[in-house]
Amino acid sequence: MQHARPLPGFLVQRYHGWRATTWSENSAWYRRLAEEGQRPRAMVISCCDSRVHVTSIFGADQGEFFIHRNIANLVPPHAPDGQQHGTSAAIEYAVNALKVAHLIVVGHSRCGGVQGCHDMCSGKAPELEQASSFVGRWMDLLRPGYERVKDLPEDEQLTALEKQAVLISLENLMTFPFVASAVESGDMTLHGLWNDIGEGRLEQYDPKVGRFVPI
Amino acid sequence: MQHARPLPGFLVQRYHGWRATTWSENSAWYRRLAEEGQRPRAMVISCCDSRVHVTSIFGADQGEFFIHRNIANLVPPHAPDGQQHGTSAAIEYAVNALKVAHLIVVGHSRCGGVQGCHDMCSGKAPELEQASSFVGRWMDLLRPGYERVKDLPEDEQLTALEKQAVLISLENLMTFPFVASAVESGDMTLHGLWNDIGEGRLEQYDPKVGRFVPI
Amino acid sequence: MQHARPLPGFLVQRYHGWRATTWSENSAWYRRLAEEGQRPRAMVISCCDSRVHVTSIFGADQGEFFIHRNIANLVPPHAPDGQQHGTSAAIEYAVNALKVAHLIVVGHSRCGGVQGCHDMCSGKAPELEQASSFVGRWMDLLRPGYERVKDLPEDEQLTALEKQAVLISLENLMTFPFVASAVESGDMTLHGLWNDIGEGRLEQYDPKVGRFVPI
Amino acid sequence: MQHARPLPGFLVQRYHGWRATTWSENSAWYRRLAEEGQRPRAMVISCCDSRVHVTSIFGADQGEFFIHRNIANLVPPHAPDGQQHGTSAAIEYAVNALKVAHLIVVGHSRCGGVQGCHDMCSGKAPELEQASSFVGRWMDLLRPGYERVKDLPEDEQLTALEKQAVLISLENLMTFPFVASAVESGDMTLHGLWNDIGEGRLEQYDPKVGRFVPI
Repeated sequence: MQHARPLPGFLVQRYHGWRATTWSENSAWYRRLAEEGQRPRAMVISCCDSRVHVTSIFGADQGEFFIHRNIANLVPPHAPDGQQHGTSAAIEYAVNALKVAHLIVVGHSRCGGVQGCHDMCSGKAPELEQASSFVGRWMDLLRPGYERVKDLPEDEQLTALEKQAVLISLENLMTFPFVASAVESGDMTLHGLWNDIGEGRLEQYDPKVGRFVPI
Repeated sequence: MQHARPLPGFLVQRYHGWRATTWSENSAWYRRLAEEGQRPRAMVISCCDSRVHVTSIFGADQGEFFIHRNIANLVPPHAPDGQQHGTSAAIEYAVNALKVAHLIVVGHSRCGGVQGCHDMCSGKAPELEQASSFVGRWMDLLRPGYERVKDLPEDEQLTALEKQAVLISLENLMTFPFVASAVESGDMTLHGLWNDIGEGRLEQYDPKVGRFVPI
Repeated sequence: MQHARPLPGFLVQRYHGWRATTWSENSAWYRRLAEEGQRPRAMVISCCDSRVHVTSIFGADQGEFFIHRNIANLVPPHAPDGQQHGTSAAIEYAVNALKVAHLIVVGHSRCGGVQGCHDMCSGKAPELEQASSFVGRWMDLLRPGYERVKDLPEDEQLTALEKQAVLISLENLMTFPFVASAVESGDMTLHGLWNDIGEGRLEQYDPKVGRFVPI
Repeated sequence: MQHARPLPGFLVQRYHGWRATTWSENSAWYRRLAEEGQRPRAMVISCCDSRVHVTSIFGADQGEFFIHRNIANLVPPHAPDGQQHGTSAAIEYAVNALKVAHLIVVGHSRCGGVQGCHDMCSGKAPELEQASSFVGRWMDLLRPGYERVKDLPEDEQLTALEKQAVLISLENLMTFPFVASAVESGDMTLHGLWNDIGEGRLEQYDPKVGRFVPI
């Protein structure tokens, strides 16, 4: 692989700083986690967005959260078709192998993927409709959400669609037999969150009132 | 979505603590990131494993890294077939929309996904061969790596396969026209890392010597 | 003391979060408790086990419970021999100095200390019989309990022994003259609880029926 | 055990509230902890004082901390004499059976036990000198600390003695061969903290400067 390049110096420097401090102060625990394996309490599905780090928000210890991050924190429906489904693989591993107690989907404000979906569905981004657009095809998962929000006042649609990304993921999660089974037996609980990145506010979906409410 | 449950109390408490400290102390920056959008310098592709948090290793600031996490930090080859490819969508967004300057793939020791691939390829895990196994099908991506390591001494194979997961991902990245183009024009560089989670050691692939060397 | 090390960063972060929220919201009360001293209503004796936090179960306010935690929530018999008795010191302080109104012993399921006692008494853990085994000598306190449960069906013995740990502690408490006196004068009441940690169920000893009953 | 009494109604009520909320929302995790056993990252030794709850300060999840609480957070020196040593048993279990990565001693301001030690050592509490005083004999462990602080200005002595309770405990911990061995091999780290309960401030002992410094 002749294209690999040396890591930029500022990252090398920070890594050495981390190893001399965080790793060094926690080495006993890192070693034990390495030897005994992880036993995370929860799986988190959140966005790749550089502004949303759930480890920071939840003061996560090493070993606490199994984290999958993709564009717009989306979960596709169950489709055991022999194709490659990275998100489904992560969920299968978390639920069946790690037996996590909670599965938490975290959406957020100003999501570029959700914006793209909105542009595509409202006809403003024909390039996303092409078969070759990976982002477009991925955001197809959120099309049912667009149908639910398109009649809202225009300035409410994006936030509503970001929250739909969380809800549709939770709905799709329940199409996985092993997820439905773990939820129904009480072995695992589902949680839907939405983070306002500017205000640092966290809301969670409350099925009793049918909407997201501040925590 | 009637299955959503309230967030466990200890996470609620930690979130409020985060908001009163980390968010509060950085609110000007969070707000600016919200208004102006993210402009991450690098995309990182790493594993979902709860023991590998690249934000910690690299002291990442909010807004610095666009992070995709999947099982075994794998990238599939370019396949514009109109299907859903979450990893490819994340790469496309990072390279074409965000124009990141670096694309860093981070593998690690004691990887459960890589272990599963090794078990599957060596005939010890027939259940992973089934079409319905999401983990099995996802780990198909690493089969070529197994071919390259299967004749090594047995106690070296797993680590070697973990490193192959990084190299094969880098190779597959170059099959994406927009990645190859950005690499060839010098707009983006590729990097392959492997983290020993117990020892906190980071190694990077050096094409001059054809192997991973400590940083 | 040259071996002291800095606190791991995730705990530093969580502490700052606590101070900015819980402490800050309760600072008037914390300050008053600091100035006027504690006046807890009850003493609780429970196990060190990380899965049993009575402050959580009883929604304890700061200042409410004086809590001693040791292996298997055991109380030794009164022995004023001039030696160091940490549990007896805690009881003496709670009863004579703080004049608590209730003394509550809380046992629990899956107790590692009780399991060790059972292994030792049934001949399966000879290493615990050695004079140098602190756990073994501490669990000697529960040997009389083993005699009472050893003829039960095998799958009932551990739970029965966990409950004996509570009952023997209550019996030993009554050998302390100041405890007996406070109980007899009505200044303090004794309570025996057992917590099923998996099911979150709490049972209390009811002398009328001579066994633990659900609360 | 005919002296056991029913739990006061307000505690019954709070327990039911806890079970309907905290337990219910976390039942999957509680059940898993029950089945698989605890794997706490750290042992904490803190005071019985009702005003110091480390689970609150550190936003502890169930299963994170193995907690021993006694009067004045004291650790006696290693004494394998076949007698009952509750604190030593807890330490032995945490280090040898649970293999915790950190052992954290937490002292605090306004400590009644430390005040008693100071009164006793300065001749103001002759009743604590009696062989039958459990608190007096327990606080004998801190006499060496009194010698180190008795020449300080009078208004500094109590705080200094509270901090000595932490340091002497750390020193005594190192007399346990299994503690010394784990510390020297890097398998466990020691930490000394002191909490100002009124101000909610946390300080840690820094061996480089030879005193406690704010965190």
